[in-house]
Amino acid sequence: MSAGRDIDALIEMLAKLPGLGPRSARRAVLQLVRKRELLLMPLADLMHEVAVNVRECTRCGNISEGPVCPICLDQKRANGELCVVEDVADLWAMERSGNFKGRYHVLGGTLSALDAVGPEELRIPDLVQRVEDEGVTEVILALNATIDGQTTAHYIADQLEGTVRLTSLAQGVPIGGELDYLDDGTITAALRARKEL
Amino acid sequence: MSAGRDIDALIEMLAKLPGLGPRSARRAVLQLVRKRELLLMPLADLMHEVAVNVRECTRCGNISEGPVCPICLDQKRANGELCVVEDVADLWAMERSGNFKGRYHVLGGTLSALDAVGPEELRIPDLVQRVEDEGVTEVILALNATIDGQTTAHYIADQLEGTVRLTSLAQGVPIGGELDYLDDGTITAALRARKEL
Repeated sequence: MSAGRDIDALIEMLAKLPGLGPRSARRAVLQLVRKRELLLMPLADLMHEVAVNVRECTRCGNISEGPVCPICLDQKRANGELCVVEDVADLWAMERSGNFKGRYHVLGGTLSALDAVGPEELRIPDLVQRVEDEGVTEVILALNATIDGQTTAHYIADQLEGTVRLTSLAQGVPIGGELDYLDDGTITAALRARKEL
Repeated sequence: MSAGRDIDALIEMLAKLPGLGPRSARRAVLQLVRKRELLLMPLADLMHEVAVNVRECTRCGNISEGPVCPICLDQKRANGELCVVEDVADLWAMERSGNFKGRYHVLGGTLSALDAVGPEELRIPDLVQRVEDEGVTEVILALNATIDGQTTAHYIADQLEGTVRLTSLAQGVPIGGELDYLDDGTITAALRARKEL
C-alpha cells in the first residue's frame, strides 16, 4: 500500500481477526482513521484497558475484569447447578438465552488425541474438585455435539459418576428449523427423543 | 453479557466496524483476549500510534503518517499525470493495480445536491490550483460509475476545460466478467466503445 508502515501493519493485524479479511480490514482502517476521535482513539484506549485488566476467572475460566468473574461472585447463582461448556463463547451463548441461573465451568477446549489435549489441559481436575467443594447437585454438560465434544462429555461423566446428578442438553430439531435442511443425525436423535403431545 | 463493562464496550465498538456485526465482534474479542500478548497489546499500541500520527496529506488528501504522503513526496511520480479519485479506498485500489505512475487527488466524496455537498467541500478548488501549480499535463478522472460520480466528473471537466488533457477510465466488460451477469448499462457502454481486433 502507500499510506505508511503503521497503517499497513494495522491492516495486516486487523485482517487476522475472525470475520475480517484483507479487504474488510482495509475498509475498517479507513473508517477508523476517518472517525479518529469517535472510534479510533476510544478503541485503542479500550483495547489497552482490556489487555491490562481482563484475565481468566480463577474459578470457572470465564474471562473477567477481576480475579473472579461476576457470575461466580453472584451469590444468587449458587443454586447447585454447574454448566460445563467448552469455551467462553459457549458460556456467552448460554447467558444470552437467559434461562440458566446456575454457574459455569469453562473447559477451554475438548479432549483430543490428535492435538494431544488431555484432561489436565482442560480444567477437568478442577471440575471434579469444584463438584466436591461447592455443594454442586447437578452438572449439566453443554458441550458441542461434535465427536470431540461428546468424547469429552463421556470422559467427564466417567469421572463424576455417582457423585452428582449428570445431565446434558437435549438434542433435536432447532426452534425454527426445517426438517428438509437438517442432517440425518439430528433427525434420528429427534425421533429417538420424541415426546408425547 | 457477563464478562464486564470494558469487554461489553469493546464488543459494541468493534461491531460498528464495516464487515463486523455483534456476532463476529464477540468472536474477535475472544480471540483478542486469548492472544493478549500477540494480538491485543500490539493492536492497541498500533491504533494509538495511528490515531496520533496519521493525518490527511495536505496536497492530495491521501492518509499519511507525515504532513505529505509518500506518493506526493516521490519525485519519480511527478510525471504530469494526476488521477482524481473519490476517496482513499479508490486510491488504494488504483495503487494495487500497480500501473499508474503519476500522482493522485482525493476529492473526499462526490457532489450531491441531496446531501448538500458542493465543490468547496470536495477539494475541487484545490484541484484547479494544483493543475496550475504543478505542471499537470493530464487529469484522469477515476470516479465511480455512479450518477453522483459522473455528475462530479462532468463538473470537474467543466472547471478544467481548455487547461489540460482530460481523460476518464474506460467503461466496459470487467476482466473475467460474464455477459450473462452484467447489467444492461455496462453491456451498452461496452458495445458503444467496441474496438477493432
